[in-house]
Amino acid sequence: MEVKLNEIEGIKISEGMSATDLVNQMRFAGLQASELRKAVEVIGEMKQENAVLILTFTSNMVSSGLRELFAQLCEERFVDAIITGIGSVEEDFIKTEKPFLLGDFNLDDRELHEKGINRIGNILVPNDRYIWLEKKLKPFFEKELEKQKKVRRLLAPHEMINDLGKETSDKNSFVFQCAKKDIPIFCPCPIDGAFGLQVHLFKQDHPEFGIDVSGDLKPLANLVLHAKKTGGIILGGGFAKHHAIGANILRGGFDYAVYVSTGSEFDGSLSGAKTREAISWGKINEKAETAYVEGDASILFPLIIAGVKG
Amino acid sequence: MEVKLNEIEGIKISEGMSATDLVNQMRFAGLQASELRKAVEVIGEMKQENAVLILTFTSNMVSSGLRELFAQLCEERFVDAIITGIGSVEEDFIKTEKPFLLGDFNLDDRELHEKGINRIGNILVPNDRYIWLEKKLKPFFEKELEKQKKVRRLLAPHEMINDLGKETSDKNSFVFQCAKKDIPIFCPCPIDGAFGLQVHLFKQDHPEFGIDVSGDLKPLANLVLHAKKTGGIILGGGFAKHHAIGANILRGGFDYAVYVSTGSEFDGSLSGAKTREAISWGKINEKAETAYVEGDASILFPLIIAGVKG
Amino acid sequence: MEVKLNEIEGIKISEGMSATDLVNQMRFAGLQASELRKAVEVIGEMKQENAVLILTFTSNMVSSGLRELFAQLCEERFVDAIITGIGSVEEDFIKTEKPFLLGDFNLDDRELHEKGINRIGNILVPNDRYIWLEKKLKPFFEKELEKQKKVRRLLAPHEMINDLGKETSDKNSFVFQCAKKDIPIFCPCPIDGAFGLQVHLFKQDHPEFGIDVSGDLKPLANLVLHAKKTGGIILGGGFAKHHAIGANILRGGFDYAVYVSTGSEFDGSLSGAKTREAISWGKINEKAETAYVEGDASILFPLIIAGVKG
Amino acid sequence: MEVKLNEIEGIKISEGMSATDLVNQMRFAGLQASELRKAVEVIGEMKQENAVLILTFTSNMVSSGLRELFAQLCEERFVDAIITGIGSVEEDFIKTEKPFLLGDFNLDDRELHEKGINRIGNILVPNDRYIWLEKKLKPFFEKELEKQKKVRRLLAPHEMINDLGKETSDKNSFVFQCAKKDIPIFCPCPIDGAFGLQVHLFKQDHPEFGIDVSGDLKPLANLVLHAKKTGGIILGGGFAKHHAIGANILRGGFDYAVYVSTGSEFDGSLSGAKTREAISWGKINEKAETAYVEGDASILFPLIIAGVKG
Repeated sequence: MEVKLNEIEGIKISEGMSATDLVNQMRFAGLQASELRKAVEVIGEMKQENAVLILTFTSNMVSSGLRELFAQLCEERFVDAIITGIGSVEEDFIKTEKPFLLGDFNLDDRELHEKGINRIGNILVPNDRYIWLEKKLKPFFEKELEKQKKVRRLLAPHEMINDLGKETSDKNSFVFQCAKKDIPIFCPCPIDGAFGLQVHLFKQDHPEFGIDVSGDLKPLANLVLHAKKTGGIILGGGFAKHHAIGANILRGGFDYAVYVSTGSEFDGSLSGAKTREAISWGKINEKAETAYVEGDASILFPLIIAGVKG
Repeated sequence: MEVKLNEIEGIKISEGMSATDLVNQMRFAGLQASELRKAVEVIGEMKQENAVLILTFTSNMVSSGLRELFAQLCEERFVDAIITGIGSVEEDFIKTEKPFLLGDFNLDDRELHEKGINRIGNILVPNDRYIWLEKKLKPFFEKELEKQKKVRRLLAPHEMINDLGKETSDKNSFVFQCAKKDIPIFCPCPIDGAFGLQVHLFKQDHPEFGIDVSGDLKPLANLVLHAKKTGGIILGGGFAKHHAIGANILRGGFDYAVYVSTGSEFDGSLSGAKTREAISWGKINEKAETAYVEGDASILFPLIIAGVKG
Repeated sequence: MEVKLNEIEGIKISEGMSATDLVNQMRFAGLQASELRKAVEVIGEMKQENAVLILTFTSNMVSSGLRELFAQLCEERFVDAIITGIGSVEEDFIKTEKPFLLGDFNLDDRELHEKGINRIGNILVPNDRYIWLEKKLKPFFEKELEKQKKVRRLLAPHEMINDLGKETSDKNSFVFQCAKKDIPIFCPCPIDGAFGLQVHLFKQDHPEFGIDVSGDLKPLANLVLHAKKTGGIILGGGFAKHHAIGANILRGGFDYAVYVSTGSEFDGSLSGAKTREAISWGKINEKAETAYVEGDASILFPLIIAGVKG
Repeated sequence: MEVKLNEIEGIKISEGMSATDLVNQMRFAGLQASELRKAVEVIGEMKQENAVLILTFTSNMVSSGLRELFAQLCEERFVDAIITGIGSVEEDFIKTEKPFLLGDFNLDDRELHEKGINRIGNILVPNDRYIWLEKKLKPFFEKELEKQKKVRRLLAPHEMINDLGKETSDKNSFVFQCAKKDIPIFCPCPIDGAFGLQVHLFKQDHPEFGIDVSGDLKPLANLVLHAKKTGGIILGGGFAKHHAIGANILRGGFDYAVYVSTGSEFDGSLSGAKTREAISWGKINEKAETAYVEGDASILFPLIIAGVKG
């Protein structure tokens, strides 16, 4: 054990203190508090070293108020690429027009269903959001089919999502900001969710329409291979997490990695796997700076970013 | 509250008792024990009503000894379709030739990396497994590219996986059994993992090679739409879970659903969402019979199946 | 890494198979399945080495059908001492007369409150159970006060609980079985719960009545100090867990320890602490055989005992 | 569903923003963020209504930097009573002289044991701390025994802990601050931990020494019964949580309650029980304002207090 041992330091709260002060006080507080502060440190190093920064998240975070923070970080070009699910894209897009609502975890789901309201934890999405999405996606797919015919190949997910971002000018949309700032959004699983359902329906009349997921591989590989350093901010689990760390195998692993997760390790799931498991695979480099903070990103991620911004 | 109230009944263990007896004793034991027994009941009803049964799982379960149980259930045509990640497929395929090893959750990952051993929880996969996979996939992709050219369209994931199943004759492989019994394996995210990496490498020389994920949608939709009843056994979370329940929106939701999960509800994640959340969406029918058992499927699923088999 | 590496072995389920066969198949299945099988092994060694076996559990387990299994293990003198909360004792005692009921985790708690029904997860306890308890405890405390006066010192928790066990002849009561078989039940926190409330009310009229918790220390210490070997089966967390491992500091730690828990490690809580954390304290011996199974004891403990009984 | 539906609002982070601003932005952010903001609101109401405020926590929080925040809140008389484990008391007392150290969750526990270092999550406590404690407790127990003889009854935990607080003048000690401000610390389980071990050793020479836990009941009952309103801030689980809500049965339940927890509901454990379960018991009033925030208190509690202080 050559770990240098700092003393545990106490936290004191004063009126009007800055969020950064609060986070800085957590540095030697122990438990998850010091892990959170370490995450701030690791991200600070990523930025200082100009690492290519890949951000991943799951769609429930876009359902929440994190969506606007993601958009902010894209607008500021804080991140260089995003990997996420198609649910994130469709919900971000819906919110350009229609907000989601704050409900409660314990609402009666049968009652909600009768009222045409869909629940994501304590967040509610009335059906009209999806009707609106359907109306928007139909002509969008027509345009994409035209493009497909012109380029004589199926489009890749990141291309379609980039095109979708151009359909809006909502500054609070991360899909818009990514399109504007040329930040690729990779999505290895684009036919899930409401988007996928609309693909299915559109395909009934246009069987030639399709999505070639393999088209995302080269730009992601190039991004990772040409970078001097890479850093990952991995919020939650799922394939977004795995795809990000998996791509970094090509270069011997991420140089910096911050995980924020509610997953559990004991079931061997990827979602709950710690940063150290990724080291065995070469998905995170042996010498990488890493932090793992356990808890809900809706609280932890804003706090981390507040710490990073200082 | 019109719930009928049974008395909590105690559990007694006797030497040599059958697994079914044990599970049956859990019926009125409360906590997760009675939930597990309810899962047995719901699956029993699925089978009795000849519901089209969709099984979903995550790849860590294939890393474990559940793989052979999945293969058994496919061989017995207990299930009608599988939705899972490409990691499940590649690990099942590797195991047709080379076993995984039992390690420990606390092994030193840097040391493992030096030795060329990858860790999945307490399961170990030496690098030679992936070298073998690479050797097998290259000629396989060549065949698939031939096929692609012949049919003049990109292949869908379920088609490729079906072809892969024909490359082995390992009875303990669920990919083999599915190919043999014509059980489709849907995989909305086929370019993740080692399989995806090999797609990327193959594509360097064959840029025309691709995978059209949208090709999985119609057969899955038809399966669900033409069924009198549908039942889902959803092990773990991720897109496999979401894709299964999402497809059932087309018919007003699953008629029967059993979830086994370690996910948490408080973060609004799909992986931790309870069956009742899916009811708000119409992904599970309002009148469906459901059960939700919390815990690791490596223990719970064999126990449930033992209970179902009686 | 000198860990011997076994191959992961698959699980197959056959009709009528014994619970032990099922558990034995988990031996090399990986994830929690192999941890559960290891728990069976460690307990087997405890018994073979005639280790003094301390069983700890939390009161929710007594609310469930595990109560009767605890009673069985006491009747069989499988265990040598129990450490638990007073809630376990009072619920066991109530059940000698009146059963608990199986409800649902999602019942409306306001409605339940109006109906006079108390909820423990999916287990229900109507108020009359507590009224009955009150009626029983009043004369019991009178007897204990007499005894207190006679011995001229306050009684210790294990003495009172032993006396309470003599008030019933319910074979399914672990408090009864412990009294009958002279198995001490240590309870370092006897004034919590309904029992504590009744102590408070009784004390209004008898301020001289009291409970000297320090009286539990010597018999527990002696048990641990005079044992050739000690083994712990620790179900759940809380002070019961800590008290058991803490007492074993006196002898250099448990020689065998099996934890079954749903706690989490990341918060530094004792309830989620793994067996290895206890090694740093000397609460579990460095050379001890240990297993840690994550999940709900209502399922896992019967399965483990079925495995142990063979 | 008469719940008023607010729109989900996005979070934006600016340099130097106050912690309160950050927390306020979480109000309509959904998931745990909005739960955290609700906790701030509920505590604000407690204070405005001059509710008698009971704070409970587990000892791992005192191991962390929360100890000093607890001391601050006692010094400010923000709280009216504390319920916690004896581990909290002994660790607070040790820290008056000797700090704990920041380690790592993954340190080698056998190596730590050889070096005489005890681990609590990622917090380390060298053995000399406990040797120091032993030296301090021996004369302390002698004084307490004198007092016991003088008052002719065993002392109650809250009396002893109050006396212990007078043995130090460390402003960062909550035990000191409570003694100074006459804030009772109730501890229904005082013979656990190192304190309990020392009681055991002292008792070898002084068998007449004891602790009457029943002596804590009346002052706690009186506090609760004479209050116009009561509010609970319940950090973590265990008997401290249960004792606080249990005592409030006497008055029809807490009027305000905030839980911060990492526990799980599915196992029926008290530690993971939600506020609504307590309503069925009358431990929290049907009309109470409540919030439940899931996650590690080392991060969440400072953030909540920052929000409360404004």
